[in-house]
Amino acid sequence: MSVEVPAPRHIRLTSHSGGTGALPVRWGAATPAERGPVVGTTGQRSHRNVIGTHSGSYSVYRALAVAAGALSRQHRADLTNTSPTDPIGPYPQWSDPGKIVSLDPWGADVAQVFAGEIAAGYDVRPTIAVTKAHVILPEVIEALQKGRLKADGKFLTAGGAALVTKAAIEPVWWLPGVAKRFGCSETDLRRVLFEETGGMYPELVTRSDLEVFLPPIGGQTIYIFGNPHDLADPAVELTARVHDECNGSDVFGSDICTCRPYLTHAIEECIRGAQPPSAGGRGGVGLIAYSRKEGRALGEVTKFLVYNARKRQVGGDTADQYFARTECVAGVQDMRFQELMPDVLHWLGVRKIHRLVSMSNMKFDAITGSGIEVGERVNIPDELIPADARVEMDAKMAAGYFTPGEVPTAEKLKQTKGRGLNE
Amino acid sequence: MSVEVPAPRHIRLTSHSGGTGALPVRWGAATPAERGPVVGTTGQRSHRNVIGTHSGSYSVYRALAVAAGALSRQHRADLTNTSPTDPIGPYPQWSDPGKIVSLDPWGADVAQVFAGEIAAGYDVRPTIAVTKAHVILPEVIEALQKGRLKADGKFLTAGGAALVTKAAIEPVWWLPGVAKRFGCSETDLRRVLFEETGGMYPELVTRSDLEVFLPPIGGQTIYIFGNPHDLADPAVELTARVHDECNGSDVFGSDICTCRPYLTHAIEECIRGAQPPSAGGRGGVGLIAYSRKEGRALGEVTKFLVYNARKRQVGGDTADQYFARTECVAGVQDMRFQELMPDVLHWLGVRKIHRLVSMSNMKFDAITGSGIEVGERVNIPDELIPADARVEMDAKMAAGYFTPGEVPTAEKLKQTKGRGLNE
Repeated sequence: MSVEVPAPRHIRLTSHSGGTGALPVRWGAATPAERGPVVGTTGQRSHRNVIGTHSGSYSVYRALAVAAGALSRQHRADLTNTSPTDPIGPYPQWSDPGKIVSLDPWGADVAQVFAGEIAAGYDVRPTIAVTKAHVILPEVIEALQKGRLKADGKFLTAGGAALVTKAAIEPVWWLPGVAKRFGCSETDLRRVLFEETGGMYPELVTRSDLEVFLPPIGGQTIYIFGNPHDLADPAVELTARVHDECNGSDVFGSDICTCRPYLTHAIEECIRGAQPPSAGGRGGVGLIAYSRKEGRALGEVTKFLVYNARKRQVGGDTADQYFARTECVAGVQDMRFQELMPDVLHWLGVRKIHRLVSMSNMKFDAITGSGIEVGERVNIPDELIPADARVEMDAKMAAGYFTPGEVPTAEKLKQTKGRGLNE
Repeated sequence: MSVEVPAPRHIRLTSHSGGTGALPVRWGAATPAERGPVVGTTGQRSHRNVIGTHSGSYSVYRALAVAAGALSRQHRADLTNTSPTDPIGPYPQWSDPGKIVSLDPWGADVAQVFAGEIAAGYDVRPTIAVTKAHVILPEVIEALQKGRLKADGKFLTAGGAALVTKAAIEPVWWLPGVAKRFGCSETDLRRVLFEETGGMYPELVTRSDLEVFLPPIGGQTIYIFGNPHDLADPAVELTARVHDECNGSDVFGSDICTCRPYLTHAIEECIRGAQPPSAGGRGGVGLIAYSRKEGRALGEVTKFLVYNARKRQVGGDTADQYFARTECVAGVQDMRFQELMPDVLHWLGVRKIHRLVSMSNMKFDAITGSGIEVGERVNIPDELIPADARVEMDAKMAAGYFTPGEVPTAEKLKQTKGRGLNE
């Protein structure tokens, strides 16, 4: 492999405002023409109107592809046939100031709404992609076999495939709005983001005129069961779960937590929620929003360190010490910060969630605090909780998570005990 | 929430070499004392001897935690009881120059091997965590029910729980070695990493004395079935799969690809590989290495755009156009770059993989090219391939991926056709 690096030239360590060619971004404007496109290209620096670049953390792999000589620096995506399978919005929330600060509501439609800018030479890339899929989960097949679900041929096939519309969403942060959500000044947010990442993107502190940041973090994926338009209609019953990634359970089925059982239970509820009454369904619509926030956004190394500390502490892995062990290692119990999570719901036009499949008070508070009504809260059935995950469940219920049943006492928390490391 | 930001002070946009207090890193040295610890703390800048900081992309969430006033800038992890459940290494590969360039082989043992430095005030954090788990997959339960697997009570319980040792591994890149793997100069690699990420970490170009980079990307997780020590013994049969993340299939069971079926097939092979012959097993050891490289490291937005382009192209979603559509959108067919993947195998001391559960030629070439012998290649049984994923499988086989059967002809590739978007 040879490296395609142009003739030596000056390396610019940071950029300066007042350059020519960059289009303004007026976040929250009512129309795409007023809002302007998010331009994160690395091909034509003078066109950039953001800090960072596209694809979240995968921008590092893109750089490797250039270093390896496999990708041209100047490549532009051919967007032929890539447009959304289902148009989403625009909804009033898109221009309600501060309702959406961590994704670009126009991000799925750039090829259409910014066609003029693209024709004029701006490299505008989609930050959202909407497609269709058939998803086949063993737990759904089991629900069919046990008669909990019935195939209807439209939402759920006899083979256990659920038909969904799904979307992948990259993070696009409007820094003034993000700062407001976290209750700090924009200046402090920018400075802390720069310093506490070890000096990532000096433009965070040198370019206060650039208000949009494409952070190198994982994004979100949503799965819609039923008609996507119904999500914005409060008269249609919406069953929804917002789920944070847990690779160990979601993929590998580790029994120390309830993540996959909760997720597949929610998918079953979403399918039933979307199916017609003739198939035992509720005639509504279902939604799963999946966020890449592994291990409460502490990352998996910290998560596994905490597992060891829990299992080895004096007295064993008891529910009363569940949160304390995380705090010892990580300094906080949780770094997921549900403050940004409701944005995706507002992008979809959601105004009411009739059935929220979650016991998290943080999620509930963030959703209702953002102006979305929540009806019933649906918790995971007891028989789906793995024995070793009882520690987490009891600790969460005692800490204020939702439960329709009894809240465990302090004494009970000491008794709820997980497996040892050698069991 | 209030922001804990100290009194205003000068913001340093980049650092300078020749500072006092930072410990040297001599990558590939035989002992931890000679190698020195990787110090990525943001608490004490003068101690830093790397570019970037810990936790990969989750460093951004850590910064948010500080901005929100939830986490002290000076928090240090309490590592009590967090050490590995199973010691890994040291193995000769750890000090074989260039064998390991993308993870820190001493990263799991910092509390022990760098105890002196930690006592002296250096904030040395683990970049690897090793723990134990029970993993319960519906596909494994099905294999038990159908008699393909038998419970033995030690490796696999009657309830379908497989007992594993698992490790989470953060990326730690030694830039001279990474450049060598990609066939470019270190200077060019540093420059391209800086410029093609939109200006992330100026120290990449200003601090050539800092050779270690903690990139804000996802890491890896490994699952070991059987005794971890046996991985390093070529006399013990090793069944292994190196798997790249695919959230849509791994978690949600999307039928457009074979990712989860391949993964669960490999887990079944690994369990059987580790079980004793009395339970129908092969008496060896099993390994799954899972890398966070969603959508061929293109990210999920690009992946979904490609799905739409495939399904909508003239003639439909045929195998002969499978790779072409990715290249149109992304500029390359694949950004996973298996060049760094074998590092984790060398960390585990692997010298021979007897049964490699993969059809990827790129993975095979990278593993054997790094000096590890590969015996048999085990491909996915035909009955596990979802109908819509036939497009991918035929395209891959025609492109040179391993198959024990017939390689599809150009004519056949035009005929292998996936579902339309509205089916």
